[in-house]
Amino acid sequence: MPDTLMLSIDAMGGDDAPDIVIRGVEYFLSHAGKNRKIRFLLHGDEAQIEALLAKAPLAKQRSEIIHTETVVAMDAKPSHALRRGKGTSMWNAIASIKTGQARIAVSAGNTGALMAISKLQLRMKEGVQRPAIAAIWPRPVGNAIVLDVGANIDCDETQLCEFAVLGEAYFRALYQKENPTVGLLNIGTEELKGNATVRATHERLNTLDFGLDYQGYVEGGDISVGDIDVIVTDGFTGNIALKTAEGTAKLVGGFVKEALAGNWLSRMLSSLNAVALLKMKKRMDPRNVNGGVFLGLNGIVVKSHGGTDHIGYANALNVAANLAESNFEAEIEKTLAALHDAELDLEMTAEI
Amino acid sequence: MPDTLMLSIDAMGGDDAPDIVIRGVEYFLSHAGKNRKIRFLLHGDEAQIEALLAKAPLAKQRSEIIHTETVVAMDAKPSHALRRGKGTSMWNAIASIKTGQARIAVSAGNTGALMAISKLQLRMKEGVQRPAIAAIWPRPVGNAIVLDVGANIDCDETQLCEFAVLGEAYFRALYQKENPTVGLLNIGTEELKGNATVRATHERLNTLDFGLDYQGYVEGGDISVGDIDVIVTDGFTGNIALKTAEGTAKLVGGFVKEALAGNWLSRMLSSLNAVALLKMKKRMDPRNVNGGVFLGLNGIVVKSHGGTDHIGYANALNVAANLAESNFEAEIEKTLAALHDAELDLEMTAEI
Repeated sequence: MPDTLMLSIDAMGGDDAPDIVIRGVEYFLSHAGKNRKIRFLLHGDEAQIEALLAKAPLAKQRSEIIHTETVVAMDAKPSHALRRGKGTSMWNAIASIKTGQARIAVSAGNTGALMAISKLQLRMKEGVQRPAIAAIWPRPVGNAIVLDVGANIDCDETQLCEFAVLGEAYFRALYQKENPTVGLLNIGTEELKGNATVRATHERLNTLDFGLDYQGYVEGGDISVGDIDVIVTDGFTGNIALKTAEGTAKLVGGFVKEALAGNWLSRMLSSLNAVALLKMKKRMDPRNVNGGVFLGLNGIVVKSHGGTDHIGYANALNVAANLAESNFEAEIEKTLAALHDAELDLEMTAEI
Repeated sequence: MPDTLMLSIDAMGGDDAPDIVIRGVEYFLSHAGKNRKIRFLLHGDEAQIEALLAKAPLAKQRSEIIHTETVVAMDAKPSHALRRGKGTSMWNAIASIKTGQARIAVSAGNTGALMAISKLQLRMKEGVQRPAIAAIWPRPVGNAIVLDVGANIDCDETQLCEFAVLGEAYFRALYQKENPTVGLLNIGTEELKGNATVRATHERLNTLDFGLDYQGYVEGGDISVGDIDVIVTDGFTGNIALKTAEGTAKLVGGFVKEALAGNWLSRMLSSLNAVALLKMKKRMDPRNVNGGVFLGLNGIVVKSHGGTDHIGYANALNVAANLAESNFEAEIEKTLAALHDAELDLEMTAEI
């Protein structure tokens, strides 16, 4: 662990940036980041950031502003961001990891653009075909990790096995669990269920011995149950599962609210029962699971939800800091090497 | 509408069959089925059913038992059910639609076996490549329909367009809405998002003029919101979305319960507030949306959850009765013909 951890921040990314970004840094430094040796490179409009830092004394003390004139629009196409993104706050935030000035980058900007810019500048880790986005998923106790949730539409079995490795190392780093369990998302738990890619991945994860605690198939309903720590799927299915879960949580939350506001008696009792409801709201708060991570690049990039507030942003910063302070990248490399050795051995055997 | 509607029931299908089946028929006849001219063909073990009918006077009066010796096991493989299923309660329940004795069949048995047996006996409706399973999805107001939720792992654009037609006709029949809106499940709402099949389906639904109110892409989070009535997707994605939503609802329900049971004060207030909580529970009750329908066959088959109770089963019977009393099949044929005409015109133009 280095003496002081440097985080590179795209201060202009996000719906309400740079406001929520600076307030997020301040909130982080007074909560989870308290007493941790962390500094910030804030990439963005100097005048705007300066003005905000005047109201954020902790952030001001720990930050250095690197002025940029331009930003990547929230609706910019990835191709456009690649061609025209040079010199934007997002571009420079990633560049700071490449140059070694910072350990990790955080942005609440446009996901597609951030992925494209990150891939171009940082390049894939050796032995990884495509990066994945990992999401934190709430469970009754603790969280699970689901990946990919949107970086790769079509995935083959080699990629899905790599996702298993990336996700497992990520879970270990984030929650300090020795042997997280790994599962493969499918439409049933029987051997014969699923499409050809899912079955081939299952076969490979079951056969190859590279140190993962692979538990087999999990169904959509099992993600929230909590037996499996890392759930592997392609980016199309993962994205739809993640957003469906968010939509369902909102729907159910609405039913609860509606029920408790139903008549004068429930309204009165609900107001008396505010403590319990607050507790529930806190458990369901999407800000607590804010911070998707791009896995498989030479360098760590954390993506915050674009529409989060300062508390959600602070949570993304905490995810970034925890990762930076872990052995995450070394562990990924170790398990990836074991996976590729096992795959090679399998191929060699098959050819004889 | 015929004078008396005949429903064909697989009385032995389901975790607690025939008990919950007979109690479900009784419950239906004293609630949603009250004053409706409906009769039942109960396929199954005569002795067991007779004993149960002794405690179910309404059901007894409206039922005829057709004795079968064997049943399809809840864990039987579809191939096994096809080879060995003849003479089971499930097989005979479907046969009764084929022979015209009944209008519609209901089973809470093994989904894969029921689909295989239904396809073999009833055959696909002309112009439909593969049947789909449609699920009822709760929304803030009313329900949506999502299909396919598990019958087809890999789907091409022709199938997905057919699902749009089947789902739209189903929604109209179930909820008597003139022009239900149709959406295509994807990982974003921009034109360029998604895999090749999704984009090709979008293009086709946008271009072809066959009378659907197609609204474009919807994301996972939009299903529960309520703007789109019919959501089209392949069976892999749809199954995972459905089960993920069920799992999330359970998780959130658990958080609510936990929060309200947190301390003596919340416990006391919660017990005082039981009416509101009961109301919420009712809104979230999965029994209210029980009853998946196999669409695209020559005949209607309604699949109840295997683990439901008599109230859930009664809801599946209500779905079946509503469909049978509607113009559902004629409407499907009309819109399917329009779809295929439009596709033909497109091909002809392309060849010139």
